[in-house]
Amino acid sequence: MAHVLDEKKQLLVAAEKFKDQLSKIKVLAFDIDGILTNGAMTYLNDEIGFNRTYHILDGYGMKMMKDLGFKVGVISGADGIPVRKRFQDILKCDFVFLGNEDKREAYKNVLKMGYKDEEILYMGDEFIDVAILKRVGFAATVPNSSVEIQEVAHYVTKREGGNGAAREVMDMVRYAQNLKAPILEF
Amino acid sequence: MAHVLDEKKQLLVAAEKFKDQLSKIKVLAFDIDGILTNGAMTYLNDEIGFNRTYHILDGYGMKMMKDLGFKVGVISGADGIPVRKRFQDILKCDFVFLGNEDKREAYKNVLKMGYKDEEILYMGDEFIDVAILKRVGFAATVPNSSVEIQEVAHYVTKREGGNGAAREVMDMVRYAQNLKAPILEF
Amino acid sequence: MAHVLDEKKQLLVAAEKFKDQLSKIKVLAFDIDGILTNGAMTYLNDEIGFNRTYHILDGYGMKMMKDLGFKVGVISGADGIPVRKRFQDILKCDFVFLGNEDKREAYKNVLKMGYKDEEILYMGDEFIDVAILKRVGFAATVPNSSVEIQEVAHYVTKREGGNGAAREVMDMVRYAQNLKAPILEF
Amino acid sequence: MAHVLDEKKQLLVAAEKFKDQLSKIKVLAFDIDGILTNGAMTYLNDEIGFNRTYHILDGYGMKMMKDLGFKVGVISGADGIPVRKRFQDILKCDFVFLGNEDKREAYKNVLKMGYKDEEILYMGDEFIDVAILKRVGFAATVPNSSVEIQEVAHYVTKREGGNGAAREVMDMVRYAQNLKAPILEF
Repeated sequence: MAHVLDEKKQLLVAAEKFKDQLSKIKVLAFDIDGILTNGAMTYLNDEIGFNRTYHILDGYGMKMMKDLGFKVGVISGADGIPVRKRFQDILKCDFVFLGNEDKREAYKNVLKMGYKDEEILYMGDEFIDVAILKRVGFAATVPNSSVEIQEVAHYVTKREGGNGAAREVMDMVRYAQNLKAPILEF
Repeated sequence: MAHVLDEKKQLLVAAEKFKDQLSKIKVLAFDIDGILTNGAMTYLNDEIGFNRTYHILDGYGMKMMKDLGFKVGVISGADGIPVRKRFQDILKCDFVFLGNEDKREAYKNVLKMGYKDEEILYMGDEFIDVAILKRVGFAATVPNSSVEIQEVAHYVTKREGGNGAAREVMDMVRYAQNLKAPILEF
Repeated sequence: MAHVLDEKKQLLVAAEKFKDQLSKIKVLAFDIDGILTNGAMTYLNDEIGFNRTYHILDGYGMKMMKDLGFKVGVISGADGIPVRKRFQDILKCDFVFLGNEDKREAYKNVLKMGYKDEEILYMGDEFIDVAILKRVGFAATVPNSSVEIQEVAHYVTKREGGNGAAREVMDMVRYAQNLKAPILEF
Repeated sequence: MAHVLDEKKQLLVAAEKFKDQLSKIKVLAFDIDGILTNGAMTYLNDEIGFNRTYHILDGYGMKMMKDLGFKVGVISGADGIPVRKRFQDILKCDFVFLGNEDKREAYKNVLKMGYKDEEILYMGDEFIDVAILKRVGFAATVPNSSVEIQEVAHYVTKREGGNGAAREVMDMVRYAQNLKAPILEF
């Protein structure tokens, strides 16, 4: 592993450090803006309004974790056509709770799907995420979230939101649970 | 606070360092291009012209600071449909002065709202911002502004413009004034 | 070379280190998302769907390497109008295999063009790239790919995907093979 | 200047180091892709094709340098509606040479405007820029250009292209020539 970047080796160390918590995770829930996007808001037109930018690594990761048996979804104050296309139509998330900045009801619905707090991982970067971040088994955030968010999170990603931060955490879960990536061979 | 990033701890130190000045702040005024945007100008179409990219952390911060009692607004040479949608319609800023590169008149209008220089915080990154930066109680700028701007600013943000620089300064004000973030509990 | 950045000097060292492998390369094959793009997915409209962002340095590099006699192309699960415009119409790639996440068939077609594994360079950043990365003469990836990808790659670029990572590797091939850049003189 | 960033202090040192060369500069000529843009190419529609992203600091800098008496313009292989809108219509450049990858003719036209090599500053990041970079009084490039470009440039910017790299060099010229920025006072 000589040529593996230090950043990536640190990820394996972090997966080991949080192994107890990460081993119990069955549900991956993500905030959208700033976590699955880089936080950018760019006006497109009347129909779309302010548009968002996602990252391919996160999208592939969400599909992969679903295939590995996890329940994967989003809880976000955001809504709109591109958001629904991405998380409902393309990534076919197990749950898609949109358009409500008070995320507590959505979280209760995740629990009602039959999961306990310690089985849920949540990533968020804003004050509206704190209630959930304080309850879940594993709480992660990104480098540019406010101090109050970083204080309640178990882990702050190396990667920025929308540039692989969510994938970083998904990989940590995989490493902690010794789950093989879906690699084809010739 | 073991897992809080060093960048964020430095922010608490900076809030303490500038506590006297930040404690008096009642008005938050922002330049748009390069401060509330990443400086990007991308042509969209005839109606919109060159379009801008905002950041969710700054938008949430501006709404939050309004809720906490601050007067929040923009003073910018920029103008156009997306700018007005963002700062008037969505963020409902207390003041929106657009389309004039000579910002002195706009600043006087902020004073006329009943505030003194030392109660105003301003963020800007260009020579057209210097007149205001030199007068206000707290002047902040971003890492890629020119030397002359950084010389008159009290604080240069860690974050780049449009990637949470404005939110960084809003958080500093909050920390210096011991204002609680609006966190919901279960 | 006093003013050449350390990052660039390291590139010359890396080209020397992998000289044996790089000397045999005749084919340059690239994954698209995260390698030739920055991984960004931004919804544009119904016709285009989620759009991608390419980098001028990579595009120029691909044209230059073609002119220097290399076979240059893409193997990607992605497809769509902008992808075809970029790699077929504008860059006129020698091979353009799109829309299949199982890339093994496409790779076999590259071999059928008359090349051996050790003559092929491939860049990828995802699990669907591992089969090819493990076979080719030189396998490269980007800093934010997962550990499993970095473990099978010979080289992890300094530059991020979509910000010159592919060009970095193309330049390494050129340096290792002592190929002159196409520089005009007055 | 206690709070001025180290990056900015280094800029003053660099301006002093190259003072002899920079003192003679009367013309500022820029490549577009990768210098005045971040290198991004994003498909928009049939009319615009692949679109580019500019930076506000560079645009303001170009207008300011014109006001200070410099001749300012672009020499680029690029062309299209947004390029012309930005550099002809909005920034009103003194010269706009577009659509030819062989830039030698354009450079001769700059000389014909009555300037000598040593009075011209040029920024470029690609092999098609080398001919000019080797002739001009001051040649600058960006951090992700190829080694061959950095070898012929006098200066490699701290900032990336499209994120203030061109403005960084414009500021160096200003500092070396002791030109005051256009700052309004109350």
